[in-house]
Amino acid sequence: MEDSVPRSSVSMFAGLVGASQVLGLLAVVLTGVWMGHYRGGFAWDGSAMEFNLHPLCMVLGLIFLQGDAILVYRVFRNETKRNVKLLHGIIHLLTLIISIIGIVAVFDFHRATKIPDMYSMHSWCGMATLVLFCLQWVMGLLFFLFPVASLWLRAMYLPIHVFCGLTLLVMAIGTSLLGITEKLLFSIMPTYSKFAPEGVLANVLGILLVLFGALVCYLITREEYRRPPNPEEESLSVHFKTLTEDGSPTTP
Amino acid sequence: MEDSVPRSSVSMFAGLVGASQVLGLLAVVLTGVWMGHYRGGFAWDGSAMEFNLHPLCMVLGLIFLQGDAILVYRVFRNETKRNVKLLHGIIHLLTLIISIIGIVAVFDFHRATKIPDMYSMHSWCGMATLVLFCLQWVMGLLFFLFPVASLWLRAMYLPIHVFCGLTLLVMAIGTSLLGITEKLLFSIMPTYSKFAPEGVLANVLGILLVLFGALVCYLITREEYRRPPNPEEESLSVHFKTLTEDGSPTTP
Repeated sequence: MEDSVPRSSVSMFAGLVGASQVLGLLAVVLTGVWMGHYRGGFAWDGSAMEFNLHPLCMVLGLIFLQGDAILVYRVFRNETKRNVKLLHGIIHLLTLIISIIGIVAVFDFHRATKIPDMYSMHSWCGMATLVLFCLQWVMGLLFFLFPVASLWLRAMYLPIHVFCGLTLLVMAIGTSLLGITEKLLFSIMPTYSKFAPEGVLANVLGILLVLFGALVCYLITREEYRRPPNPEEESLSVHFKTLTEDGSPTTP
Repeated sequence: MEDSVPRSSVSMFAGLVGASQVLGLLAVVLTGVWMGHYRGGFAWDGSAMEFNLHPLCMVLGLIFLQGDAILVYRVFRNETKRNVKLLHGIIHLLTLIISIIGIVAVFDFHRATKIPDMYSMHSWCGMATLVLFCLQWVMGLLFFLFPVASLWLRAMYLPIHVFCGLTLLVMAIGTSLLGITEKLLFSIMPTYSKFAPEGVLANVLGILLVLFGALVCYLITREEYRRPPNPEEESLSVHFKTLTEDGSPTTP
């Protein structure tokens, strides 16, 4: 992004992206430590150890990877739009696969231990987030990667796609915080209020997730970090759309 | 907003603002019904009835009123900026007063019933939201209502102020969802998983809050609903800043 913005803005951008990656990775590691060290580790056998895969997959997939899939439009803002779109779609596909494993793990655990499904706000918000995420991914694929919609329709849908993407990331983070609170109250209710180390670790994890989400939203919504308009790319996308399958009407 | 945008956009805007008000008011009413009907009503005596004021004040203040204070910049986009700013500041002051009553209620209840403070993620997120809200209110007052900062500084701060305002609304909603989950698990854990009416009502309340927040964020971030630039106002704000105390450098 050196071409179009001042050097101080570039340093600030790099610093904020770096900070987001540190926060996101730390959140994934803390989830692993919480489930691995305090909750007995991981397995695929219907036990609580299978449940433990659920938080890990959701934080890794629907939060860290989804956040990074969104950020590629800012980090690789001087690469060709086609390549960035492909990367955006592929990371989201990976997000989807990991999240589905996480969802299967918790339903499997519930079935094995006879716990009812879908009664809590965490489950309602989580299911809504996953269903809307799938819808958003398919719509994005149809509108932007294999553009079957008209340029006018794509231009109209683009800001909605961006808004919904950030909303889904925020919903995923909110849902995780609900999950963390549920898990703590189910597991350590008597010691949680005495600042048990497990409770403090899980609370810190929640704060890291909030900071990660706030940073990604800030980086995406700041005007100066947006992808600069490329008239050549736009013109190609208008006149040779079927040949290039590359252009989109405005800057995401 | 009839002057600058097409009629269909005006109808859509009016419909979305109307929907946000229905959702917000419904959320306040549901909170009242939950605390009034299922949790025994309200009092100021250190009992659980004093605690019941906490959710009501926070949903009314830090969510509904904060959301509406933000929306005034879009709803009254053709009024003078000075009046809209005043209204924005006054509703936020009301938000602050109601929220402080809500916070005092819960600390008072904790002291009377010997429940430890500030151990849960709900309390961490809630305290962070309230402290940052106070900071944001004071900064807004200094920068925009009694502009002590230079025009350049105000122009630089404005997008940060807008971003932080929306972030605080989202944090308030996330914190409320955590509070709802906590309250349900403390009060009706054995029946929550059997879809007890109180649990369903509280979950529905959570979904209403999410929808209210999503609508406010959508209305604020859509380009076509922004306040149209007013060259006369801008010019006044540059040349007669001390006389008018009215202009701000860009459109909020």
